[in-house]
Amino acid sequence: MQTKEQIILGIDPGTNIMGYGVIQIKNNSISVLKMNVLKLDKQKTHIERLKDIFEGVTAIIEENHPDSVAIEEPFYGKNIQSMLKLGRAQGVAIAAAMHNNIPVYEYSPRKVKLAITGKGSASKEQLAAMLHHLAEFKEEHACLDATDAVGIAICHYLQCKYPSNEKSYSNWKTFLTKNSDRIIPQ
Amino acid sequence: MQTKEQIILGIDPGTNIMGYGVIQIKNNSISVLKMNVLKLDKQKTHIERLKDIFEGVTAIIEENHPDSVAIEEPFYGKNIQSMLKLGRAQGVAIAAAMHNNIPVYEYSPRKVKLAITGKGSASKEQLAAMLHHLAEFKEEHACLDATDAVGIAICHYLQCKYPSNEKSYSNWKTFLTKNSDRIIPQ
Repeated sequence: MQTKEQIILGIDPGTNIMGYGVIQIKNNSISVLKMNVLKLDKQKTHIERLKDIFEGVTAIIEENHPDSVAIEEPFYGKNIQSMLKLGRAQGVAIAAAMHNNIPVYEYSPRKVKLAITGKGSASKEQLAAMLHHLAEFKEEHACLDATDAVGIAICHYLQCKYPSNEKSYSNWKTFLTKNSDRIIPQ
Repeated sequence: MQTKEQIILGIDPGTNIMGYGVIQIKNNSISVLKMNVLKLDKQKTHIERLKDIFEGVTAIIEENHPDSVAIEEPFYGKNIQSMLKLGRAQGVAIAAAMHNNIPVYEYSPRKVKLAITGKGSASKEQLAAMLHHLAEFKEEHACLDATDAVGIAICHYLQCKYPSNEKSYSNWKTFLTKNSDRIIPQ
């Protein structure tokens, strides 16, 4: 199935650091246009940092014109207070996309791993290896902290292309049959 | 001390309902210009509701032109997941203000009660009674669910006017001496 050209922005927003990755889909192949992090100044107040996230995401959108934004929906947290602050960080990032009329999608870390590696409990290393197999990375895109954000963007692309990926596979054979393009040659 | 004329928007954002109150300060007196709630459609997805909050807050700002926005910083929550969603709701509301270059301030519920009633552990009824004493409410502004939002806005005004209110008072006598305008005549 040929998919139309599109640009997806993946965001992994935190309260100290926000990872982001911009991918481009062209002729069914994925290339990473940009991956980086926005380091948030610890000297600033929480509200000032939220402003930096809002302005940072707005600048990324204005520069890259994504068709959609994908964001991680975390299911864990250190404590209630840190989850509130993380939620606010995500909220301002989501609002920056909404303000530009870009649809926002969210995926759990498990769904990202499942969509990309076929295994919801895949390790960070397995996820990174599959991302490098699926997408074209340039040398300057070596910022590891932004890998998750690229993963979220690619997850969104795969969800659109193969909606059935939302469900778990009963076994490896089924996954490999349906995802023959993801078998890494030995 | 004469304070300049200003408009303050107080927001109490939740994931099901968002209370808001717009107050105007003129010749040192407070009047409530608007207080209402934005009811969020439970049939909609979390992301769609965030969009409704962002658009709702943007519309309130465009209509009332507040000089500042004050928001509650909750310190409690049912669980981690609900705090993340509450944080996102707050984040998009904060972003709507930031996008309009309006400074955002946050106050804990305890600080709101302390600034308004002189008692951080005041009951909802005590808070409501003092709000009605401090500000001019019109008949149509009887929406109780938005009382907290008006309280947050008035708290911000009092914090600007009497910065020392940030600290607790050692006893009632000190509070009453410093806040003679808040003694309700019997």
